[in-house]
Amino acid sequence: MEKQNEVEKMRHTLSHVLAGAVLELYPTTTLGIGPAIDDGFYYDMDFGIEKITEKDLDKIEKRMRGIIKRGFKMEQSEKSRNDAFDWAIERKQSLKKELINELPESEKISFYTMVDSQGKKVFEDLCKGPHVDSAKEIGAFKLTRLAGAYWKGDEKRQMLTRIYGVAFETQEELDEYLKRQEEAKARDHRKLGRELDLYTFSDLVGAGLPMFTPRGTLIRDLLTEYSLSLRKRAGFERVWTPHITKVDLYKTSGHYAKFGDELFMVHSQVNGEEFALKPMNCPHHTQIFASKPRTYRDMPVRYMEPTTDYRDEKTGELGGLSRVRSLTQDDSHVFCRMTQIRQEIGNLVTIVREFYTGMGMMKLRARLSYRSDEDKYLGDKKLWNMAQKEIRQAAIDNNLDYFEAEGEAAFYGPKIDFMAEDAIGREHQVATIQLDFVQPERFGLEFVNEKGEKERPVMIHHATLGSIERFMSVFIEHTAGWFPLWVAPEQVRVLTVNDKVSDYVGEIKKILGDVVLQEPVRNNELRYTVDDSDDSLGKKIRRATAMKIPVILIVGEKDKEADVVSVRLRDKEEKIKLKKLSEYLLGIS
Amino acid sequence: MEKQNEVEKMRHTLSHVLAGAVLELYPTTTLGIGPAIDDGFYYDMDFGIEKITEKDLDKIEKRMRGIIKRGFKMEQSEKSRNDAFDWAIERKQSLKKELINELPESEKISFYTMVDSQGKKVFEDLCKGPHVDSAKEIGAFKLTRLAGAYWKGDEKRQMLTRIYGVAFETQEELDEYLKRQEEAKARDHRKLGRELDLYTFSDLVGAGLPMFTPRGTLIRDLLTEYSLSLRKRAGFERVWTPHITKVDLYKTSGHYAKFGDELFMVHSQVNGEEFALKPMNCPHHTQIFASKPRTYRDMPVRYMEPTTDYRDEKTGELGGLSRVRSLTQDDSHVFCRMTQIRQEIGNLVTIVREFYTGMGMMKLRARLSYRSDEDKYLGDKKLWNMAQKEIRQAAIDNNLDYFEAEGEAAFYGPKIDFMAEDAIGREHQVATIQLDFVQPERFGLEFVNEKGEKERPVMIHHATLGSIERFMSVFIEHTAGWFPLWVAPEQVRVLTVNDKVSDYVGEIKKILGDVVLQEPVRNNELRYTVDDSDDSLGKKIRRATAMKIPVILIVGEKDKEADVVSVRLRDKEEKIKLKKLSEYLLGIS
Repeated sequence: MEKQNEVEKMRHTLSHVLAGAVLELYPTTTLGIGPAIDDGFYYDMDFGIEKITEKDLDKIEKRMRGIIKRGFKMEQSEKSRNDAFDWAIERKQSLKKELINELPESEKISFYTMVDSQGKKVFEDLCKGPHVDSAKEIGAFKLTRLAGAYWKGDEKRQMLTRIYGVAFETQEELDEYLKRQEEAKARDHRKLGRELDLYTFSDLVGAGLPMFTPRGTLIRDLLTEYSLSLRKRAGFERVWTPHITKVDLYKTSGHYAKFGDELFMVHSQVNGEEFALKPMNCPHHTQIFASKPRTYRDMPVRYMEPTTDYRDEKTGELGGLSRVRSLTQDDSHVFCRMTQIRQEIGNLVTIVREFYTGMGMMKLRARLSYRSDEDKYLGDKKLWNMAQKEIRQAAIDNNLDYFEAEGEAAFYGPKIDFMAEDAIGREHQVATIQLDFVQPERFGLEFVNEKGEKERPVMIHHATLGSIERFMSVFIEHTAGWFPLWVAPEQVRVLTVNDKVSDYVGEIKKILGDVVLQEPVRNNELRYTVDDSDDSLGKKIRRATAMKIPVILIVGEKDKEADVVSVRLRDKEEKIKLKKLSEYLLGIS
Repeated sequence: MEKQNEVEKMRHTLSHVLAGAVLELYPTTTLGIGPAIDDGFYYDMDFGIEKITEKDLDKIEKRMRGIIKRGFKMEQSEKSRNDAFDWAIERKQSLKKELINELPESEKISFYTMVDSQGKKVFEDLCKGPHVDSAKEIGAFKLTRLAGAYWKGDEKRQMLTRIYGVAFETQEELDEYLKRQEEAKARDHRKLGRELDLYTFSDLVGAGLPMFTPRGTLIRDLLTEYSLSLRKRAGFERVWTPHITKVDLYKTSGHYAKFGDELFMVHSQVNGEEFALKPMNCPHHTQIFASKPRTYRDMPVRYMEPTTDYRDEKTGELGGLSRVRSLTQDDSHVFCRMTQIRQEIGNLVTIVREFYTGMGMMKLRARLSYRSDEDKYLGDKKLWNMAQKEIRQAAIDNNLDYFEAEGEAAFYGPKIDFMAEDAIGREHQVATIQLDFVQPERFGLEFVNEKGEKERPVMIHHATLGSIERFMSVFIEHTAGWFPLWVAPEQVRVLTVNDKVSDYVGEIKKILGDVVLQEPVRNNELRYTVDDSDDSLGKKIRRATAMKIPVILIVGEKDKEADVVSVRLRDKEEKIKLKKLSEYLLGIS
């Protein structure tokens, strides 16, 4: 913590250095605010008639380094309100004047001044601090980019220029960070989504509503199938429910009171009936459970359904899958007895572990999300306490790497939220397991127990990969588009050196047609294509590599003579005997 | 035709006989109208304070037979408007009076009178005819049921009692018809849907929005998979599109102008944006086609997507799947060159034939649906003529049993609609193949041809099983719930005679667990359960038979000793050696 505070102070001081450098270069600049942020700092400024571009960042950065090199101390001082106003007016800093005006009238106003070794003021700013003491404590930094930002975030106010910088204690940390940023940019799923032809958007359809091409749909379907197959093994059965419902369903479930004004409403023009697009599936699933009498022999009843929910998300990140309005959930619900909770949670934890291990995301953390003392939670507090204990015990029993967080529960019960780390160390919220005593009560769900009495089941909500769209955004970036063989939309591409090998290609195709992968998804028939166009081999290879095809088979006359194929994987190249090809492909993970 | 007219006249005359009989039994009855219908006749009546139930139909029918036995002639006469009013008032027939009031003032009013052999009026009615001449021409009939019906179909008017009868020329035809009715009733998919636990409805969710239980979902998914697998073989690739869209999409496609006021509208409460629930998928699919440049080498591009569309259907037949608001289409679209149309249609016809043969519905008829001269059709008339020729030629080339129908085309092009006959001889509209030159034009779709020029593709719309919900209603009734082995949700149930065979059941389970059907759907792992409850064998058998499980395996100590199982299919029972069991099961079709 202490260290973090020091880094934050240093970043904040750098925002002052930035402002000082800008004023030296562009004296008429009007300053907004300049805070420290997660990885560095920024400062919002109005450059007036000056136009600056990213090219100018070098010049500004050089000037900053000059200021730091000359050395300075940070000195705090106070001014009366009137003196502060005079300070702002004198410098034509109208935005600072506005800020001063908003401060409490009775208090003294804090300023920070950078003073150089000759005692000369380099830059003075309205600021509460804290800052590092002197230029010596400044670590490594870099100005990264420009952005537009409305003054006070208010789109009715003027647009300022925001200059971003990143800063760390050491050059090593900075380099590491920049490398990771570069890596993340190359993995950006929006960029890869286009390049690998996985999904598309249309202005006629609308923002946040991706459409999946054949390649993207194959990945969707295979990921879904993997997730479903793990739950099938654990006794889950598929069900199907429509995408709309009368709002009565959500009035009964309790969702309407909580989120009623966020629902997409559906209106029949024919007879005026009102429906809602479903934003979740639990209420629908209760209706299937309730559709016939149940006894203790039937319990647990386990439903799963990959189905699309609609949520009225802000469509911030356009062109991407991280935030969409059409979320396909690989949703599931267990209806079980109190005594079966721990066993069921254990099963679900096993599924989550196996799935993310299969995805190459071994490092899982679990957040146990409890209620807080706010009254936004439904249901009996005693049941909540019991449920939270169950969840904690399940986390211990299953050796989860967990932490606890109050106030993160769903309104109907506590939950375990899983975080998975990707290939470049970023953590993503993925699977969830949620206990629910509220909906069974509100829907009057019941089964007959051994004594012939009516008993109320508990519900456990679970999604293994969460929303398929969001998981795909994570998975594309995690793999950088180099999908594991089993899930690659085009697994093998055969490239011909010339047109004298077509009969040999026929033999190869016959072998490929018989290859069926069985892990992690069963009966996964090999997907291959042949590029026997007139283009040069070099062009064919570049084209196949650009599409990140995991296995490229190159076939020339010499290969034919030797009864081999040249196999080119991402990281190696080798000749394989034709009769070993099938075995070889099955051995690639 | 002539014969049909004679039957209709006879049915109409029977409605008079019915009214006459009722008036003899319940003289204060007020009569509404009594027409001939498809299979017989009805008469709407107000019984006043008399309450009649279906039990009374026997008595009324007996009286009708009495009237017919005594013999009568039908005599037409005319009355002036005033005389007609007097006639109605005298008889207190207020509804007839209302009808007379609505007839054109200038015309004479037609009446029909049944006159018996003594010249006595048996029954006189306001009626335009036509009728048979005499009682001798009355064939075989039967009163079948009562229903409520608003006077003039207006729910603000009084509710009348409608008595239905069926009538045919011969007793043989009537018996045949009643038998078929009985059969249809036993096969009613609403009844079987409940009994076999296939789907359910909830008042909280709404009418016309079925939810599928695990058993129903298995059937849905297997039928879909079969249909998809046939198209996959023909080069179709799966895509995925969201269930909502901005209406701009339908304004461009041309659907909005035609059906805009039938769309389910979707409203964002967060920012007021408007969307529509998709009622079809072609416009979405055009956007995937348009998402990247295409060349002649890519053509044809073939997309398929089983996805749910929403149509604001009247929910008439409640509790059933024939008319639902959530229709899951096994939709597909080919984008091809003009020169590829015939080949593509041929492929689709092959798929349709194979699918319905697989379903045991061998008898397929095709309706070639052409445009009429109305101006509701979009696009160039020359293209239409060309397209209609293509379709006709395809029908001939593929030896379809076809007929032609003007005015049945889609607004964008002509189509082939397939009708399949079910096990009890009823014809159902199922698959469709539709040509479309309009949407490619309106969406500006194009590809680059061999000459480097832009060329416009043609679209072919196709659904193999149509809406899955509707097809399931047909399939359930076609099979009477005795699903073929491959698609039965529970294929095998093992029944134990007592608890001394559990190790032997273990052996059997191991065998069953390894059985994988490959036809018509590949990798179809056997679904089995074990009933080893304490109930008697008789009860277990009754329970399994009620669920129409195709294969029941009965296991007792003697079976264990002899290393056999007793297999009970729907139509036979036999002992099978354990080591032959797997082979035996794979041999059941």
